[in-house]
Amino acid sequence: MNKGRLIIISGPSGSGKDTIIKKVLSRLPEVKFSISSITRPMREGEVEGEKYNFVSREYFEDMIKNNLLLEYNNYIGNYYGTPRKPIDDAIENGEEIIIEVDTNGAANIRKLVDGTISVFIMPPSIEELRRRLSSRATDSDEVIEKRMRSAIEEIACAKDYDYIVVNDDLDTAVDDFIDVIKADRLKTERKNYLIDEVLEKC
Amino acid sequence: MNKGRLIIISGPSGSGKDTIIKKVLSRLPEVKFSISSITRPMREGEVEGEKYNFVSREYFEDMIKNNLLLEYNNYIGNYYGTPRKPIDDAIENGEEIIIEVDTNGAANIRKLVDGTISVFIMPPSIEELRRRLSSRATDSDEVIEKRMRSAIEEIACAKDYDYIVVNDDLDTAVDDFIDVIKADRLKTERKNYLIDEVLEKC
Repeated sequence: MNKGRLIIISGPSGSGKDTIIKKVLSRLPEVKFSISSITRPMREGEVEGEKYNFVSREYFEDMIKNNLLLEYNNYIGNYYGTPRKPIDDAIENGEEIIIEVDTNGAANIRKLVDGTISVFIMPPSIEELRRRLSSRATDSDEVIEKRMRSAIEEIACAKDYDYIVVNDDLDTAVDDFIDVIKADRLKTERKNYLIDEVLEKC
Repeated sequence: MNKGRLIIISGPSGSGKDTIIKKVLSRLPEVKFSISSITRPMREGEVEGEKYNFVSREYFEDMIKNNLLLEYNNYIGNYYGTPRKPIDDAIENGEEIIIEVDTNGAANIRKLVDGTISVFIMPPSIEELRRRLSSRATDSDEVIEKRMRSAIEEIACAKDYDYIVVNDDLDTAVDDFIDVIKADRLKTERKNYLIDEVLEKC
């Protein structure tokens, strides 16, 4: 059977990674998405089980105790974590599963899981990133500057990723990400079984 | 600028690699093809400058002397060689160039050129390969058996390639090969300049 794959995706705020992931998942419904467990309250527009499972602090601490999380962290008093089982299951079943994390999370997960591939979503330019972040009318200048600084730090880590997808035109970026997933299915390390199958019948 | 890439393609007789390459080149006209220089006589159906340049023994030996060949060999008294300049030029200009070689040639070229990618074209099964080779009515049973043995030897080397494309349905195989080329263009090693461009303007 085909080997599965954990696909790490990162990109700064304003890179459009959420929209790209949503469109890729709808075009490749066989690809799974790793849903994080978090203890912070649900925000407007968020849906339970879409990107996050909203759980209680007690539940989360039980998951930690029972070693059910691949990794977790605590950010301003709230827990964020990645349940281990859906990822193990997907890889075991020869499926792809996408995980969205920041550049620090990506570095950790590369160490924890064998044979990941990673994709960095890049804004077309710093000017365009500023324009996108500024167009969210609710954010103060200070918040925008903080996001810009954080984006620049993340972009400097893009070199550690296997692939870079520039989100200038959304449809092109989605096509590019899908190309990466499809080409990855053709890698010899995922197709070794085919060689054996063919040679078995010699 | 984007870095170029030498794309090595191999596959046994009957894998359909010639047809796949022709279709890929017509769908991606920006991709170059490495034309071999050979000294054997032209066969029926062959066109000068398509897959081969037909040259004299003297001309070929001059190329050897002047170090104009990346690699060459002599097979049953005829020379076969890969001119170095088109490959260097393509890589220098950020272009892709495809080279079709057998598994031995692929192993040599991987050592000679940095950062190649390699694709092995696989028949869907040994039975189907035998059927394809047998359908060439002009070949004797002995020739077919020789081709089968050689094919099996080549398939055993498929593990050394980066990607495996199964040619069961021709259009799917062409799409797969194009996915490999397109995803390769997104690799960070070919896109490093983008990170610098974006960060330069911080």
